[in-house]
Amino acid sequence: MGPVASADFVARLVASAGALADTEHPRILLDSNPGVPDRNAAARGEGASPGPALAAMARGLVGAGAEVLAMPCNAAHGWSDAIRNAAPEARFVDMVAETVAAAIARRVPRVGVVAVQATHALGLYSRPLEQAGLAVIEADPQKTALLVKRVKAGDLSRDARQAAADLAAGLVARGAGLLVMACTEIPLVLAPDNSPAPLLDPTAVLTSATLAAARRTGVQAFD
Amino acid sequence: MGPVASADFVARLVASAGALADTEHPRILLDSNPGVPDRNAAARGEGASPGPALAAMARGLVGAGAEVLAMPCNAAHGWSDAIRNAAPEARFVDMVAETVAAAIARRVPRVGVVAVQATHALGLYSRPLEQAGLAVIEADPQKTALLVKRVKAGDLSRDARQAAADLAAGLVARGAGLLVMACTEIPLVLAPDNSPAPLLDPTAVLTSATLAAARRTGVQAFD
Repeated sequence: MGPVASADFVARLVASAGALADTEHPRILLDSNPGVPDRNAAARGEGASPGPALAAMARGLVGAGAEVLAMPCNAAHGWSDAIRNAAPEARFVDMVAETVAAAIARRVPRVGVVAVQATHALGLYSRPLEQAGLAVIEADPQKTALLVKRVKAGDLSRDARQAAADLAAGLVARGAGLLVMACTEIPLVLAPDNSPAPLLDPTAVLTSATLAAARRTGVQAFD
Repeated sequence: MGPVASADFVARLVASAGALADTEHPRILLDSNPGVPDRNAAARGEGASPGPALAAMARGLVGAGAEVLAMPCNAAHGWSDAIRNAAPEARFVDMVAETVAAAIARRVPRVGVVAVQATHALGLYSRPLEQAGLAVIEADPQKTALLVKRVKAGDLSRDARQAAADLAAGLVARGAGLLVMACTEIPLVLAPDNSPAPLLDPTAVLTSATLAAARRTGVQAFD
């Protein structure tokens, strides 16, 4: 949903494809649509559901030939069933499920989650992580929202990176041994060099899982 | 056509949109298709024309709602009529025409052009620049092809940047006062800090022209 995060995801897919020539890359179809209804408002029950827009985008991409679908927006995964139902013939790579599996594999007892309100309110990460026996510590949603808004406006400054580090430090102070950057804008300002704890980046997890799914599906140029 | 160049163009559109929130961005539909027939082979008359693939991609994008079309590949502009004919209802922003206009505006007598074989063979830049009374100096197409191949393989190293600077120096030695980076991989390794002459970057020209066309067209979220 975030245009910066969408561009970042495309760049990562290309950089991670391990391709030595154009023809070794998978074909990529992108629909970066800022018109999808606001996920936070919808999670509060105050706005239209993003579901129909996501379903229409999925149908458009599959109609154009997409065999693997990925959505680099954590909060929107609250409506991922709309995509699965609209495009059952495609393989939907679930960023949240893949990241939860990667977090569990890290074997830390307490996981910090940096996310916007909708992601927390819908329990997208807390529910499956707690079901797996992990304690979940959530970053202040208002501070996170302010930071995400800055990044969406293009602010990747040192000051924005400090605000991200402060958010991270708050989670570590409350016992988090691993930080899940569960909003795709966060990895743009939080990295190993300014984080007080190990990070898990859902966009990176999604990149690997999407390329692996494309290879398994035999997507063009991976044959 | 080049996946790295496509990802770079999307990132530039997002960064240059001047948007302060998601909803101020234009919707972006990308078809990054490494399966388009090779432009150099086609220009030599040795391979299939890229035209039908470009026409199909244009129809797909317009069918999905695109009102403005842009193609961040110089050589493929040799077949841009296929796009115009396939999608007459959309505004095609011609990267080569826009860049030629920008080069003429710089008022230098001799322009260097760094491009792959097809771009030179089809006279995409040399014909209109010479018609405007400018002398055109072409970079060695074999050295350029080698460099482009490295960049496409992900090599943005200091060594690749040195090879780009050497190419540029050769053009300056032959009298070029402005260098047109007429292959979208070149700006990834050539920049003001390693170029001996002022640069003109068609991808940057295309970014501005595309955003301007989107504003004029009233593309969603620019209203």
